[in-house]
Amino acid sequence: MARTVDWDDDGVITAIDQRALPAEFRVLRLGTVDALVAAIADLTIRGAPALGASGALGVALAARAHPGDPDRVRAEAERVAAVRPTAVNLRRGVERALRRLDDGTDAVVAEARAVLDEDEATNRRLSRRAADLLTELCPGRPLRLLTLCNSGALATVAWGTGLGAVRELAERGLVDEVLACETRPLLQGARLTVWELHEMGVAHRLCVDSAGASAIARGLVDAVVVGADRVAANGDAANKIGTYALACAAAQSGVPVVVVAPDSTVDHATASGADIVIEERAADEVRTVAGVPTTLPDTPVYNPAFDVTPARLLAAVVTEAATFRHGAWTVETPVPVP
Amino acid sequence: MARTVDWDDDGVITAIDQRALPAEFRVLRLGTVDALVAAIADLTIRGAPALGASGALGVALAARAHPGDPDRVRAEAERVAAVRPTAVNLRRGVERALRRLDDGTDAVVAEARAVLDEDEATNRRLSRRAADLLTELCPGRPLRLLTLCNSGALATVAWGTGLGAVRELAERGLVDEVLACETRPLLQGARLTVWELHEMGVAHRLCVDSAGASAIARGLVDAVVVGADRVAANGDAANKIGTYALACAAAQSGVPVVVVAPDSTVDHATASGADIVIEERAADEVRTVAGVPTTLPDTPVYNPAFDVTPARLLAAVVTEAATFRHGAWTVETPVPVP
Repeated sequence: MARTVDWDDDGVITAIDQRALPAEFRVLRLGTVDALVAAIADLTIRGAPALGASGALGVALAARAHPGDPDRVRAEAERVAAVRPTAVNLRRGVERALRRLDDGTDAVVAEARAVLDEDEATNRRLSRRAADLLTELCPGRPLRLLTLCNSGALATVAWGTGLGAVRELAERGLVDEVLACETRPLLQGARLTVWELHEMGVAHRLCVDSAGASAIARGLVDAVVVGADRVAANGDAANKIGTYALACAAAQSGVPVVVVAPDSTVDHATASGADIVIEERAADEVRTVAGVPTTLPDTPVYNPAFDVTPARLLAAVVTEAATFRHGAWTVETPVPVP
Repeated sequence: MARTVDWDDDGVITAIDQRALPAEFRVLRLGTVDALVAAIADLTIRGAPALGASGALGVALAARAHPGDPDRVRAEAERVAAVRPTAVNLRRGVERALRRLDDGTDAVVAEARAVLDEDEATNRRLSRRAADLLTELCPGRPLRLLTLCNSGALATVAWGTGLGAVRELAERGLVDEVLACETRPLLQGARLTVWELHEMGVAHRLCVDSAGASAIARGLVDAVVVGADRVAANGDAANKIGTYALACAAAQSGVPVVVVAPDSTVDHATASGADIVIEERAADEVRTVAGVPTTLPDTPVYNPAFDVTPARLLAAVVTEAATFRHGAWTVETPVPVP
């Protein structure tokens, strides 16, 4: 499978058009910062790690477009970083590539490409670690897993985080079924996660978001596995709206919730989830489904993009090098990325 | 506002076309059993109490069409009762009107009209009782209420149950805002509850179902108010899918959940929620919205119509004559229906 975002040798970003899935698999070519900004704004590119890579690639585009004008490159880079203010990875990706600006355009491009390679390697490692933990939490049987939104290859450069752990478990023969919540308002679960599970050949069912809690209560779920958009120092995790509701239901039934995300998602400068600003998105996302109006046209809307699940409701947060569990971070002895 | 279903003096049933809402408010005139059967089958008329009234009105139509031919009337009545075999209220309404058949057509019509009047009176009374309880639970301020699905006038003959309590509180000047969950898969919240709140002139916002839990966690909700499809003897309540997730979140935040339903919804022969069979509905309800596919065409689906919220997560179940609270039913001294 093509990487979700990649750098083409002729100096163009390639990106799987996630709005076209699952009806159509289409790879877009983004040759300007304007095109990239539009693709991030309209969620053609989405998912924290994919956004991180896109941030770095955006600086590469800007550096190629304005050689010898670092102020202009920085201004363009800031435009990219500012498209999704809650997405800390986007700004980090931008800042990382910018640090090579004094070394010239080729150095910036090389740095952006390194971000892509590291993302894939990171995802494979954190998926192995999360799969190990899940088999420890729910030993001795293939698992029935519940997930929300898309934390798969399509949310990252390749492989995935939450759904990467599912992919790893599936490769070990340890997945019985995945229940995928459709993830209103933008239906990333129905459109993207179902498509990935179908491509993987993993048994799955789709449900409306509010049926996830019911499935947990009825004993149909061994563990909830999700990604994260941002994790606070105390283990509180911001993720797609709906994660908190699943975690509340999981707590009622003693079902573990495991958040799987790269280290770069953990913001140690943010003490707790209370300090995470929740982005509110456009009202029309809720007033329509797949472009079809569902309510009165001017209905006021509450449309938070994320919610915050407190660490007390999580069995663990797993990254490629660290695990938050029982109220504390444990950092694994670092192993160099191959 | 027109009653959801009513009897016109010229011997015709009038019914608000719920499929046309919220885009269009249209009252249909149903003069034959065929027309009524079609309207029930295609969900022009929906909601357990509205269906009960429609059953009785259908017998009135048949009795006027075939005076002096009780066998024919009974056959027509059976056609009405059989349209939605799982809707127990529909058959009950049919049977109640049929019991007056030997007394003549006028007696049947009078009985059907009595069903309409009683439903409205019952709803007004249970709404007053629920409003009293809610002001006791959350005293001294206009309330921010969260609801799911449609338990309003449109689900009944008039006034409503869960949303009837909101209507009552609004008339008392005690509603600050209602947050309405859209209620996937069939979007009764977005289509019907928003329309009713708009007609009432009550401040409201629409949200995706999974945002309800987040609103509770963020302190935006004083109480959750919903209807019920069936209540067990121990206070466990079956209601539209999504109610349980809201109740789990409400428990985390100490926010009361109040179920508001007529006595006829309480099934004392059902010991607990574990004995309530959950109906699974068609997969295409989840795979599509208004005919627009949202996922791969043959995706397997988990689509339970209801979930069961255990009584321990409910502040109360309120009917027109009884309240389940603190683990026991209290029955109010009966007052005759006016």
